[in-house]
Amino acid sequence: MGLAGTTGTSVGASDRAVVDLLGVLAYGELSAFDRLSEDARSAPTLAGRAALSRMAAAEIGHYGLLEEHLAGMGVGVEEAMSPFVAPLDAYHAHTKPHTWLESLVKAYVGDGLAADFYREIAGWLSGPTADLVRVVLADTGHSAFAEREVRAVVAENREVRDRLALWGRRLLGEAVTQAQYIVAQRDELADFIVSGSGDLAGIATLIKRAQFTHGKRMASLGLKG
Amino acid sequence: MGLAGTTGTSVGASDRAVVDLLGVLAYGELSAFDRLSEDARSAPTLAGRAALSRMAAAEIGHYGLLEEHLAGMGVGVEEAMSPFVAPLDAYHAHTKPHTWLESLVKAYVGDGLAADFYREIAGWLSGPTADLVRVVLADTGHSAFAEREVRAVVAENREVRDRLALWGRRLLGEAVTQAQYIVAQRDELADFIVSGSGDLAGIATLIKRAQFTHGKRMASLGLKG
Repeated sequence: MGLAGTTGTSVGASDRAVVDLLGVLAYGELSAFDRLSEDARSAPTLAGRAALSRMAAAEIGHYGLLEEHLAGMGVGVEEAMSPFVAPLDAYHAHTKPHTWLESLVKAYVGDGLAADFYREIAGWLSGPTADLVRVVLADTGHSAFAEREVRAVVAENREVRDRLALWGRRLLGEAVTQAQYIVAQRDELADFIVSGSGDLAGIATLIKRAQFTHGKRMASLGLKG
Repeated sequence: MGLAGTTGTSVGASDRAVVDLLGVLAYGELSAFDRLSEDARSAPTLAGRAALSRMAAAEIGHYGLLEEHLAGMGVGVEEAMSPFVAPLDAYHAHTKPHTWLESLVKAYVGDGLAADFYREIAGWLSGPTADLVRVVLADTGHSAFAEREVRAVVAENREVRDRLALWGRRLLGEAVTQAQYIVAQRDELADFIVSGSGDLAGIATLIKRAQFTHGKRMASLGLKG
């Protein structure tokens, strides 16, 4: 695999960690498609419906790339995804949007957190797997529509702003909870993150960085300050 | 527009007919996305869910091309779609699948009917609009998965086969009903179809051809003979 910075773990364990990473990304894309396409249905306008549908479609493009890459490693995408179905479904079940604006904030925040995660792991990988992650990363940023819509509404309405600011915090909190759960269940993945990030605290630093970029994203939505 | 075979209608009317055609195609794609992504959620396997999600995502790719083309003509996609929202929503509301196999048959039949329609109108258009239609047409055929799954089940189960054969007939019947309704409401579109197809009977011959290819598709699914 040409993995950089393996700290004494066997290649087999590293391979399993890479399969885990690709598996969690793949199910992340598939489940995001699912939720975005469902949320698209509640759009108040055809333009909003098309914008969210387009974000959903981009996820499936990424899913296809991940599936292909896993197949090249001799691993079925279903097998790779299966350990992550429960925690990611739990994330979505616990953060089901009740309004169109909540859908938009969730789409924006989810897109951003996924991009953070892709960006982090791109640095830990090398060769074709790193290239793949960078290709997917370059195709994020379909959520400008969400940013525009949310900003416009919250600029006018302080109550909505406060409610959505809380919603944003809940989304991050739930994402962190599920990420911690996943890492606790997957030893090789946890080792890989420690060796990749060079941080013995495991995902603590990652979470800190995610909190920081999340804060910046909330500000972009007009939900802070 | 460089439209071939205009029979005395003004260019303005032809333009309006082309906008109608692109509008009905665009809402066809957007509403197909909507239904396929909802049906994907009831898939019994992750592979099935991914396959239907992928079909849905392809529709959004087409939608984007149509939107861009309409924008080039100075027409907003929402405006172009709006006359077709009610009849296409009615089609989907009247043909809501109740089982995963019904979803697959509908995906396959819908994909095929859309391809028939794109193929017909490609011959009536010229220039960039014809090119666009051919690009979209070349990207159909994402439903091989549905064909494989349905064939495997119906080969083993005569009762399911008979039920799905009926379902296939209902899908075609409902599509024809809504197509007739649309043509009856849109004079310029009706004129354009008459002049494009060179057939004074309007959409009667188109419907006949669609019935023929539908029959071949039902046979491919193992639902005939």
